[in-house]
Amino acid sequence: MGTSGDTPKKIVTGDYGYVLEDVPHFIDYIPDLPTYPNPLQDNPSYSVVKQYFVNVDDTVQQRIVVHKSSARGTHFRRAGPRQKVYFESDEVHACIVTCGGLCPGLNTVIREIVCGLHHMYGVNKVLGIDGGYKGFYARNTITLTPKVVNDIHKRGGTILGTSRGGHDTGKIVDSIQDRGINQVYIIGGDGTQRGASVIYEEIRRRGLKVAVAGIPKTIDNDIPVIDRSFGFDTAVEEAQRAINAAHVESESIENGIGLVKLMGRYSGFIAMYATLASRDVDCCLIPESPFYLEGPGGLFEYIEKRLKENGHMVIVIAEGAGQDLLSESLRSSNQQDASGNKLLQDVGLWISQRIKDHFSSTKMAINLKYIDPTYMIRAIPSNASDNVYCTLLAQSAVHGAMAGYTGFTVGPVNGRHAYIPFCRINEGQNNVVITDRMWARLLSSTNQPSFMTGKDIIEYTRDDEPLAQMSDDNSSDDKLVNKEISTY
Amino acid sequence: MGTSGDTPKKIVTGDYGYVLEDVPHFIDYIPDLPTYPNPLQDNPSYSVVKQYFVNVDDTVQQRIVVHKSSARGTHFRRAGPRQKVYFESDEVHACIVTCGGLCPGLNTVIREIVCGLHHMYGVNKVLGIDGGYKGFYARNTITLTPKVVNDIHKRGGTILGTSRGGHDTGKIVDSIQDRGINQVYIIGGDGTQRGASVIYEEIRRRGLKVAVAGIPKTIDNDIPVIDRSFGFDTAVEEAQRAINAAHVESESIENGIGLVKLMGRYSGFIAMYATLASRDVDCCLIPESPFYLEGPGGLFEYIEKRLKENGHMVIVIAEGAGQDLLSESLRSSNQQDASGNKLLQDVGLWISQRIKDHFSSTKMAINLKYIDPTYMIRAIPSNASDNVYCTLLAQSAVHGAMAGYTGFTVGPVNGRHAYIPFCRINEGQNNVVITDRMWARLLSSTNQPSFMTGKDIIEYTRDDEPLAQMSDDNSSDDKLVNKEISTY
Amino acid sequence: MGTSGDTPKKIVTGDYGYVLEDVPHFIDYIPDLPTYPNPLQDNPSYSVVKQYFVNVDDTVQQRIVVHKSSARGTHFRRAGPRQKVYFESDEVHACIVTCGGLCPGLNTVIREIVCGLHHMYGVNKVLGIDGGYKGFYARNTITLTPKVVNDIHKRGGTILGTSRGGHDTGKIVDSIQDRGINQVYIIGGDGTQRGASVIYEEIRRRGLKVAVAGIPKTIDNDIPVIDRSFGFDTAVEEAQRAINAAHVESESIENGIGLVKLMGRYSGFIAMYATLASRDVDCCLIPESPFYLEGPGGLFEYIEKRLKENGHMVIVIAEGAGQDLLSESLRSSNQQDASGNKLLQDVGLWISQRIKDHFSSTKMAINLKYIDPTYMIRAIPSNASDNVYCTLLAQSAVHGAMAGYTGFTVGPVNGRHAYIPFCRINEGQNNVVITDRMWARLLSSTNQPSFMTGKDIIEYTRDDEPLAQMSDDNSSDDKLVNKEISTY
Amino acid sequence: MGTSGDTPKKIVTGDYGYVLEDVPHFIDYIPDLPTYPNPLQDNPSYSVVKQYFVNVDDTVQQRIVVHKSSARGTHFRRAGPRQKVYFESDEVHACIVTCGGLCPGLNTVIREIVCGLHHMYGVNKVLGIDGGYKGFYARNTITLTPKVVNDIHKRGGTILGTSRGGHDTGKIVDSIQDRGINQVYIIGGDGTQRGASVIYEEIRRRGLKVAVAGIPKTIDNDIPVIDRSFGFDTAVEEAQRAINAAHVESESIENGIGLVKLMGRYSGFIAMYATLASRDVDCCLIPESPFYLEGPGGLFEYIEKRLKENGHMVIVIAEGAGQDLLSESLRSSNQQDASGNKLLQDVGLWISQRIKDHFSSTKMAINLKYIDPTYMIRAIPSNASDNVYCTLLAQSAVHGAMAGYTGFTVGPVNGRHAYIPFCRINEGQNNVVITDRMWARLLSSTNQPSFMTGKDIIEYTRDDEPLAQMSDDNSSDDKLVNKEISTY
Repeated sequence: MGTSGDTPKKIVTGDYGYVLEDVPHFIDYIPDLPTYPNPLQDNPSYSVVKQYFVNVDDTVQQRIVVHKSSARGTHFRRAGPRQKVYFESDEVHACIVTCGGLCPGLNTVIREIVCGLHHMYGVNKVLGIDGGYKGFYARNTITLTPKVVNDIHKRGGTILGTSRGGHDTGKIVDSIQDRGINQVYIIGGDGTQRGASVIYEEIRRRGLKVAVAGIPKTIDNDIPVIDRSFGFDTAVEEAQRAINAAHVESESIENGIGLVKLMGRYSGFIAMYATLASRDVDCCLIPESPFYLEGPGGLFEYIEKRLKENGHMVIVIAEGAGQDLLSESLRSSNQQDASGNKLLQDVGLWISQRIKDHFSSTKMAINLKYIDPTYMIRAIPSNASDNVYCTLLAQSAVHGAMAGYTGFTVGPVNGRHAYIPFCRINEGQNNVVITDRMWARLLSSTNQPSFMTGKDIIEYTRDDEPLAQMSDDNSSDDKLVNKEISTY
Repeated sequence: MGTSGDTPKKIVTGDYGYVLEDVPHFIDYIPDLPTYPNPLQDNPSYSVVKQYFVNVDDTVQQRIVVHKSSARGTHFRRAGPRQKVYFESDEVHACIVTCGGLCPGLNTVIREIVCGLHHMYGVNKVLGIDGGYKGFYARNTITLTPKVVNDIHKRGGTILGTSRGGHDTGKIVDSIQDRGINQVYIIGGDGTQRGASVIYEEIRRRGLKVAVAGIPKTIDNDIPVIDRSFGFDTAVEEAQRAINAAHVESESIENGIGLVKLMGRYSGFIAMYATLASRDVDCCLIPESPFYLEGPGGLFEYIEKRLKENGHMVIVIAEGAGQDLLSESLRSSNQQDASGNKLLQDVGLWISQRIKDHFSSTKMAINLKYIDPTYMIRAIPSNASDNVYCTLLAQSAVHGAMAGYTGFTVGPVNGRHAYIPFCRINEGQNNVVITDRMWARLLSSTNQPSFMTGKDIIEYTRDDEPLAQMSDDNSSDDKLVNKEISTY
Repeated sequence: MGTSGDTPKKIVTGDYGYVLEDVPHFIDYIPDLPTYPNPLQDNPSYSVVKQYFVNVDDTVQQRIVVHKSSARGTHFRRAGPRQKVYFESDEVHACIVTCGGLCPGLNTVIREIVCGLHHMYGVNKVLGIDGGYKGFYARNTITLTPKVVNDIHKRGGTILGTSRGGHDTGKIVDSIQDRGINQVYIIGGDGTQRGASVIYEEIRRRGLKVAVAGIPKTIDNDIPVIDRSFGFDTAVEEAQRAINAAHVESESIENGIGLVKLMGRYSGFIAMYATLASRDVDCCLIPESPFYLEGPGGLFEYIEKRLKENGHMVIVIAEGAGQDLLSESLRSSNQQDASGNKLLQDVGLWISQRIKDHFSSTKMAINLKYIDPTYMIRAIPSNASDNVYCTLLAQSAVHGAMAGYTGFTVGPVNGRHAYIPFCRINEGQNNVVITDRMWARLLSSTNQPSFMTGKDIIEYTRDDEPLAQMSDDNSSDDKLVNKEISTY
Repeated sequence: MGTSGDTPKKIVTGDYGYVLEDVPHFIDYIPDLPTYPNPLQDNPSYSVVKQYFVNVDDTVQQRIVVHKSSARGTHFRRAGPRQKVYFESDEVHACIVTCGGLCPGLNTVIREIVCGLHHMYGVNKVLGIDGGYKGFYARNTITLTPKVVNDIHKRGGTILGTSRGGHDTGKIVDSIQDRGINQVYIIGGDGTQRGASVIYEEIRRRGLKVAVAGIPKTIDNDIPVIDRSFGFDTAVEEAQRAINAAHVESESIENGIGLVKLMGRYSGFIAMYATLASRDVDCCLIPESPFYLEGPGGLFEYIEKRLKENGHMVIVIAEGAGQDLLSESLRSSNQQDASGNKLLQDVGLWISQRIKDHFSSTKMAINLKYIDPTYMIRAIPSNASDNVYCTLLAQSAVHGAMAGYTGFTVGPVNGRHAYIPFCRINEGQNNVVITDRMWARLLSSTNQPSFMTGKDIIEYTRDDEPLAQMSDDNSSDDKLVNKEISTY
C-alpha cells in the first residue's frame, strides 16, 4: 500500500519568494488525455457572467498580514470552474462517502455535490456509498439524484450513514474499478483524509483516471490551512443553549456550578468561541492549555474564589482537555470496577467527580450540574451560514474533479476557495495557539487563571520557537485572527 | 462645515506596487503629544501572550487572488493593540452613539466597547448618547459601566435608542468639547459614517485631541471594502423562517405563490444569501438586477410557467428591487388616494398587487401570500457568530482610538481586522455583481430567467468596463468569492 | 339538498335535569346492521388494559362549576373505542379532506387518522382528497399509508392541499358513492363543518352506510362547546416572536409604536392569550370589544398618554377588530384607486395609516412599525402539545366512525373527548366574553381603556341578559375560566 | 410540631352524593375578624365585568364522566376573587419562597404574585425569601416590586434562588412572626407542600392571622387532583429536541441506538407525552411500568429484534424507571470504586452500560448514544402556554389569601381553578396508570412489549382493585383522559 509521501510535492516558485503548493492532476501520470469544453459555457444561468472561468494562473495567497518588504510566501491553486474539463458528462460515474462522527452540514454537502454535478455538468450517475469506507466493499449503494436529495439539507445526520474504523485500501480501489467509478468524493475528518490520500496513491499507482477529492469534515475546526470547517458555526451557536442552561442552573442555587462539556478532542475552538460568544462563562478548559486541580493557582482554588465572590460559576470544558490528569487519575484508581471506570474516561464526568470530591472534603457545600450537549449539537441541521458554505465546498470539489485535479482537498484560504494537496492537510493540526491574542481575549473575558507558573511560561515560549518564527511569517497570531472572521 | 475631502489621503507606497491607504492620527495635526506604555502589558490575561502587540509595520493586503507576476496592490493598516497609547486610563472620556435602523448586534458592540475600555485599558468614563446623533445636543446621556451592559447582548435593539435624519455638526462638536469627551464611537450606516467623517474633519479643524472611530452598521452588507457587516449573518438565518413559511403556504394550495420581502434597499445580499441557503426559492429579485413584468422573458411569464410545471412557487424580493418599475407605476396611477398609494410604495405590497391584477385578468386563479418579516428579523439578538464578530469590531475600535488613530472605520479585510479611512468606506457601495459567479450560482439554483435580452447583456458588460478591469485586478469576482466565506 | 335541520335532534333526559345531546348513528336510519367485536381487544398493546372500552353509558358533563343544589344540565357522549364496531377491517374505505386556511397540526391529524385506522383497526384503504372539497369531483386522490404519512407531522401545512369556497353536495356524495367510500373525515372550520353537516344529511337521505366525522379546525379558537381548537396553542406561542420584535423596535426609538396584527376574524382569543403570555403589550384590540379612535377615551388619546408616560408602546390587533370603523372609513374615502383601497381593507395597514395620519396632524412625531406575522404563524408545524392533542382528536374520530356514529364532531369538553352533534358546533361561535374575568385580567395587565362609556356598559349588560342567565348556569365566566386551562 | 392530620377535614355534603372537600379559613380558628370590601370593585379594568366575584357557593366537580344515574361525588371550592376580603391593602405583608429543583415558570409565578397583589389589591410589601425554606432564618430577603419582577418571566430559573432539604418549622414560623408577615406563598414540590402543611398547622396552633398558600411545582406532573403542573408543557416541548437528536444519531449509523433520559422520578408523564408527541421513539420506559432486561420478552430481546428490523432505534427512559433492577445491579457489583458506582446510580448511564455489555457479549456490534437533556430542559423560560397558566395560578393564590383562606393549594380541576386542602395534595401521587388507555396508546405507537407475563397482568389487576373502584368513580381512565387535554 502506498503512503502519502509516495508522490513528490508539486512546488512552483516565483519572484519575491512566491511559492505555489500545487495539487496533482491526471496529466501528471496519464499522458495524452483528451479535454472537452466546459458545459457551463452553454448554461443560461452563466451566460450573463463574463469571465466565469477561473484564470489558469489564479492562486490564493496564504499570508496576508504583510510588511512593506515581506516575501510573498505560500500560495494555493484557486478553486473554481475551468475552461477545459477532462470528462464528458455522460462518462462521469461519481460516488460519495461520509465517514466518522456526525457534523451539521453533511447532508448539504451531499446534496450540493449531486445537484452540482447534475445542474452544472449534466452528470446523472452518482452513487452514495452506505455506511462509510467499509461500505465500498461490504454494503449496498444508494442511487443519488437531485430529487432524492432535494430536502435532505433540512435534516441533521447523513443520509448515507457513516462508520468509524480502518479500511482496506486495496479492496476499496478494487471496488472503485469494478463499479467503473471515476470520481470519488470523500467527506470526513483527518483520519478519513489520510485514508483518501492513500486511496489516491493506489489509484495513481494503478494509473487510473479516477479523481479523488476530499471535503474536510471536523466539527472541531482542527484542520490546518483552511479557514474553518463546515458545521463549526452551527455547533458554536447550538452550544449557547447548553451554556445558558448551565448559567441559569448555577445562578439559582447557592454555590452553584454549571459544567458544560463541548466537543474538541485535540483542539478547543468550539469551547473557546462558545465562551466568547456567550459571556456567561467563568472558566474555559481546552486541550491546548494545560491546567492543574490542586494547590495555588489551580482549578479548585479558582472555583472556591469565584464562588465566594459571585455565588455561582459556569465552566466549559472541551472533551480533550486535561487528558494527562485524567489518565494519571485512572491509573492510580482502583481498577476493579471496569464499567464505573469506563464512565470516568469521559472528562466531564471525571472532573465533575473530582470537584465534588474536593469540596465534600472541605466545609464548602457546592451544587454541580453537569451538561453534555454533544449529541444534541452534532445532530442538528446546518444553519444558513453553513448551508451556503457547504454549497461552495461541494461546488469547488466538483469543479476540481471535472477539471482533472485529484488528490486534493477543498477549503477556503483567507476567504477564497482553494485546492490544497492532501499532505498539507494531513501533516498537522489546527490548534488554539494559547500564546496568541484570541486566547488572551478569552482569559480576559473569563478572568480565569492561566494555570501557568513563571517557569511554564518560559518553557512554553521556548517550545514555541518554531511558532514564533511562523508568527514572524504571519501564521501564529494571524492564523487566529484569520479564524476570527473567516470562521464567522 | 468641512467635507470628507478636506484632509489629504495618507498614501504610502512600496516595492512591487505596494500601496498602503493609511488612516489619520493625532500626530498628523497635534504636535508633541506624550505617549504612555499600553496597560495591557501588565494585564495577567495577556502576560502569557508573546508578541501581543501588533507590529507597527503590519498591513493587510486587499488583493489575495494573485498571479505569479501580480503587483501587490492596496493594503490597510492592521487593527489591534499598540505598544504605545496616546491616552492615560483616567484621562479617557468616551461616548457611544447608535444611529439609523436596528440591526442584530448593536447591543453587543456597545457592550464590548464599554467592557473593552474598562477591562483592557482601565477606562471608567463612558457615556451613552441617547437616541442617535441628535442626542448629542438634545437629550440626556446614559452612564455606561460593565455592570449596566452585562446582559444587553442577549437582547435585540439598542439600549441607547436610535434615530434617523440630519444633524448639526457644529453643535455636536460643541457638545463633545463641552462635555470633555475625547473618544467618540459612532455606530451606524453609510449616512452615519459620512456624518462621522464630517465630525472628524471639524474636530481636526479645531485641533482637538478627540478620536473619532466609526463602526459600520448595515444589515444589508452594502458597505464596501470590509468582508461583511455585523448582523448580516443573523439576518440571513432568521430570513429562513419567512421563506419556509412562504414555501409551506404556497405548497398547500393550488397555484400558491409565497412572496417574501427582505431587507436590501440598494444591495441584494440578504435576499441572495437567504435564497442560496434555503433552496426553496424559485425567483429572487434584487436591486442590482433589473427585471420587467410583462411580455416574453418577463416575470409574469415565468410565474405562469413555474405554476404550470410545479403547482406553486416562492419569490424573494429585496426591498429596493424594481424601483424603476414602481415609480413609473405610481406616476401613472391615480394620485388621489394618498394613503393607499403610500402603501404601494412598499415594493412587496406593490408587486403582490401587480401579480394579482395580472392573473385576475387571465383565466388563471392564483393564491398569493405576502410575508414581510423585516422587523421580526431586525429586532432579534445577534447569533453566536455575530456576537464574536461584534466583540472583535469593538475591541479593534478601542485599540485604535487608544493608539491615537482617528477618522477611521474598523472592519475585516480578507478576515483580518484593519483600520480603513472614512473616504474608502464612503466613496461607494458594496453591491451584488450580477456578472459574477455568485449570482450565476443563484440563477442556477432558482432556474429563474436573467431578465436580460442579448442587447442588455452587451450593454451591461460595457457599463461594467471598470469592474472588468478590477476583476483582472481581482476585485470583481473575487470580491464575491470573498463574501462567500468571510461573510459566513 | 338537505339542511342541517332536517333530522331531529337526539335528546335524552334524566333525573335532576340531566340532558344528553346525542349524536346520530347508522341504526337511526339503517335497520339490522351487523356488528363485529372490536379488533382492539386482540391488540397486544391493549391486552393489559382493563376496561379499555368506553362504557356505553359514559357521558361528559358540560357544566362543571356547580352549587349544592344545581341541576345537572347538558351532557355529551363520551368519545372512545366501543366493544362493538359496525365495520369489518377490510370493508372500510376511508377518505380524508382538509379545507380552509392553514393551521398548525393539520398534518398530524391526517397522520393519526391513517395510523389509527391502520394500527388499531387493521384498515388499509385510506384516500386523501386533494385540494379541499372540490377535490372530491375535480382532482386526483392520494393513497395514504402509514409509511407515506410517517414524517408529515414535522412539517407545516397540509400534504393534501386545501382550498376555500363553495362545493356541490350532490356531486360530492356521488363521488363518495362511486368510489365506495364509507368513512369520510372532514377537517375544516365552521363553513366546512356546515358543509359536512349537509353532506351527512344527503348521505342519510340516500340511506348510505357512510360515516361522516368532522374534526373542527380553526386557529382562532372560535368553535363553541369544545375546550380549544388544535393549532391554537402553537399559534399563541409563535405570536410571541412578533410581539417581542414589536417591543424591541418600539423601545429603540423615540415615540416608537410596535403594532402587531394577529389572526382572529370573529374572535380575539389569539390576541388575548398572546397578550397575556407576553406582558409587553400596552393595548389589545379584538372584534368582541368595540373601540373608537378619536376624542376622550379613544385610542389616539391613549396612545398619546402612553407615549408621554413611557416613550414607546406595543399594540396587538386581531384581524377582525374595528371592522365597523374600517368600513365607514373606506366608504367615506375616495374610491378611485382600487388597489390602494384593497390594501386598506387589512385592518393592520388601515389602522397604521390612521395613527400616522393623526399624529402627523399633531406636533407629535411617532415611529410606527407594523408587523403582520399571520402566514409565519399558520405555516409552522404543531408543537408537542398540539401534536398530542391532534392524536387524540384523530383517534376519537376513528373510534366514533368505526362504532357507527355519524354526523358528529369530536372535541374535548372539560378535558374529556366527546362526540358533539354538528348542530351544536354550527349554531354559534365561541367568542371572548368581554364582561368576563379573563378580559378584565387583560385590561388590568395592559392598563388600556375599556373604550366604554357609562351608557355603553349599561347597554352591553342589558344585551347580555341571556348570557347572564347562562352564567348562572355556569357558561359565561366559567366558559372562559375553562378556556384558561383547557386551552393550555 | 404539628402534623398535617392535626386539624379535622372540612367536609360538606349535599343531595345526590354531593361532597365538598373544603379548605381552612381564618374564621375556623380566629373569631370576630373584620372584613373589607374587595378593592377590585373600584378597579377600572373590572368595572365593565358583571358578576366579577365568585359566587360563595361555587364549587368545582371532580367527576365529570358520568352516567344518567351517577352520584355527584367530590367537589372543591372554586378559586377566584371574593366580595369580602380579610386584609386591608396596607396591612398585607406577603412573602414568597421557592423550593426544590428548577422548573420552567417559577419566575412567572413570582412575577404574577407580586403584580397581582400590587395591581389588584394595592399591596406594596412583598418579600422574596432567598434560597428556599432555609432562607427564612438564614439569609437575606429580596424586596419584590412590580418593577423588579417586570422582565423575569423571560428568564429561566428562579430569581429567589432555591434549595433542597429539611427545615425547622418552629424557626420558620418564628421568622414569619418576627417579620410581621401575614401571607406566605410557598412554591415547591410534594416535600415542600408537606412542609407548607406543617407550617400552616403551627401557625394555626399559635392562632396567627397568617395565610399559607401553596403553589404546587413539579415538572414531573406527579401531583394528584390537579390537571397538570406548571412547566410540564414546556418540558415536553423541549424534550423533543433531545429525542430528535437521538433519532438522527441512531439513523446515521449501523445498529444505532439513541437513548434519552428524561425527568420523572416517580411518574413517567414527561417520558410518555414526549414519546407520544415525537412519534420517533421505539421504546419508552417509566417508573410505573416494571420491565426486565434479559430473556424472552425482555428489553435486550426487543432491542435486538428492532435493530434487525429497522437498523436503528430510539429509547426514552424516565429517571425513576427500573430502580429495582438498578439497586439489585449495584448491590451485586464490586463496591470498591465509589465514584464509578455513584455514576451508575444514574439510570441512563447504568442502562447504557448494561446494553453495551450485553451486546458486546453477543456478535452484534451496536452504537449507543446517550443524551441527558435534564438541565437543558429545566432551565429554560416557560412557554406561552405555561406563562398564562402560571398567571392564573398566582392570581388564584392571591385571591384565596386575601379572602382569608389558608392551608390550601391552588390548581385546575377539570379546567377550573380550585382551592384544594393540603391533605388531598399530600396524600398520594399522580402516576401514569398503565392499565389505562393512554398507556395503551403509547404501547401501540411504539410497538414495544408490555414486559408483562400473563401472571403479572392478573396480579397487577388485583393490586389495582382500589383504582378499579375509582375508575368506576371515574378517576382511573378519566384521570388520564383528563390529563390529555388539560395538560395540553
